[in-house]
Amino acid sequence: MNLPSNVTIREVSPRDGLQSEPVIVSTEEKVHLVDMLSAAGFAKINVASFVSPRAVPQMADAREVFAAIAKRSGVTYDATVPNIKGAERAIEAGADAIVVFVAASERGNQSGVGRSTEDAMDEAESVIRITRASDRSAIGTVATAFGSPYGEDIDIDRVTHLVRRFVEAGASAIALGDTSGEANPKQVQLLATKILENYPTIELSMHFHDTRGMAIANTVAAMEAGVTHFDSATGGIGGSPFTRNSAGNLATEELLHLCRSMDIDTGVDFDLAIDAYNFLANVLKRPLPSKVGRLFRSEAEASDD
Amino acid sequence: MNLPSNVTIREVSPRDGLQSEPVIVSTEEKVHLVDMLSAAGFAKINVASFVSPRAVPQMADAREVFAAIAKRSGVTYDATVPNIKGAERAIEAGADAIVVFVAASERGNQSGVGRSTEDAMDEAESVIRITRASDRSAIGTVATAFGSPYGEDIDIDRVTHLVRRFVEAGASAIALGDTSGEANPKQVQLLATKILENYPTIELSMHFHDTRGMAIANTVAAMEAGVTHFDSATGGIGGSPFTRNSAGNLATEELLHLCRSMDIDTGVDFDLAIDAYNFLANVLKRPLPSKVGRLFRSEAEASDD
Repeated sequence: MNLPSNVTIREVSPRDGLQSEPVIVSTEEKVHLVDMLSAAGFAKINVASFVSPRAVPQMADAREVFAAIAKRSGVTYDATVPNIKGAERAIEAGADAIVVFVAASERGNQSGVGRSTEDAMDEAESVIRITRASDRSAIGTVATAFGSPYGEDIDIDRVTHLVRRFVEAGASAIALGDTSGEANPKQVQLLATKILENYPTIELSMHFHDTRGMAIANTVAAMEAGVTHFDSATGGIGGSPFTRNSAGNLATEELLHLCRSMDIDTGVDFDLAIDAYNFLANVLKRPLPSKVGRLFRSEAEASDD
Repeated sequence: MNLPSNVTIREVSPRDGLQSEPVIVSTEEKVHLVDMLSAAGFAKINVASFVSPRAVPQMADAREVFAAIAKRSGVTYDATVPNIKGAERAIEAGADAIVVFVAASERGNQSGVGRSTEDAMDEAESVIRITRASDRSAIGTVATAFGSPYGEDIDIDRVTHLVRRFVEAGASAIALGDTSGEANPKQVQLLATKILENYPTIELSMHFHDTRGMAIANTVAAMEAGVTHFDSATGGIGGSPFTRNSAGNLATEELLHLCRSMDIDTGVDFDLAIDAYNFLANVLKRPLPSKVGRLFRSEAEASDD
């Protein structure tokens, strides 16, 4: 099995994790979560999105969160933005990197940002331009890269076309999002291999949702294709408010368990990541989906007896 | 990705799935579940275990279940037994195949059957002998083959030693059980490859529990090593009442989704398998863990609106 010796995890629970939660989490709690994650060793954190507070009330305090976190050197604190206005606000708030996305699904763009795919890509190029002008790095994300929740066929050429446009616009990294958990391991290996053949030096990351329980198998398949960057969320929470069946992200605890069981270095302290699980479970007042999180949580409780 | 064109699923929900359920399921409901599974196309079904009704009350009606199921030709209805007495009862009840197990974990044997590993293997050999004498096939299972829930080291040679003894005793198939979800994909591929190198013609199956969310990734790793037989349970229910952390089995719905998304034939009708999920969820009065099961269940409910 051809596996990497180390991988980098981008922790997305503060943004992709929380954005669909119906209960508004306080600014203080969000800041504490981000600070726990940076203390645990995550080198990349998806802190917030700069979107309409009417569309996503949970992200209304994005600016305040960025202002209050205790920034650690070596950690990239990024913000997700849907358009130029969001990018300007994110840069002003102090985001280190800007994440911009275009869906491979035509209906995905219509329901997410109310634009056609080509218009969405034009806007994304403008976002990348102002991001680079402010000396930040831009991450181009192809959402619904492995399948559409609306039953459309997502051709592999459609994905590679969007990747090329992101690269040509100056994105420093590319993420492929499986927004509604459509991907299978064979497909992941095929697509990742193709993109890494075309762009051998690009930072390619995978963003898997676990709608059908395939996220961890897709992760291993991507690793075998040479991918070393993965997104995951504490507890396996998350999902897009704009996408059907966008159930939780790949759980950070499962990804950490997978890596440490196969001697793949992540630079993350497992116990501190479990502390973040416990904190978030208490904030959200329920056990979170992650099986590893629950297992270690129950072990901790059991050992208190 | 080197994948098989078809795999055989052994459905274990009637036995491994139900054995730890606190609410006693009626004989009629168990029979209906088995009949739904055979109608869906599962060629192997783990119907019941012949164990002490004091230890496992849920299996007290094993004989009645075997008597009432509508046997389909081409389907192997098997029974799990802990000892010679259990095997005799299972054969008398009409089981087509007998599943006998020895744990690679010394503590696993002590807590499961109250014997040392060598004594458990001696008993297993006797079980295989009487099974073959009655013209049934015997499946030798190495439980805790990938790790012990008690922290013991499970050496690969310990597992291959037990496999060799099963084969020499006349077992027609070998199953490796990850009883408490300790396995990782790299380890699975290593162990499966080694056993298939030693016994290229044996029917080798994998029995994964999803305690740490690794079951589906381990399944893909085993497929890549050439394994084509897998155990799974409807809804992802299950676990051993004798083993710490033996949370649910690999969910049948996830395995079916994985296979059909990668064009691997299982011979199982997906919709009928979802019907079994819905039936079992109603019997147990809760949504079952399987994400695919829940997704299709909620879609069915949504389409009723």
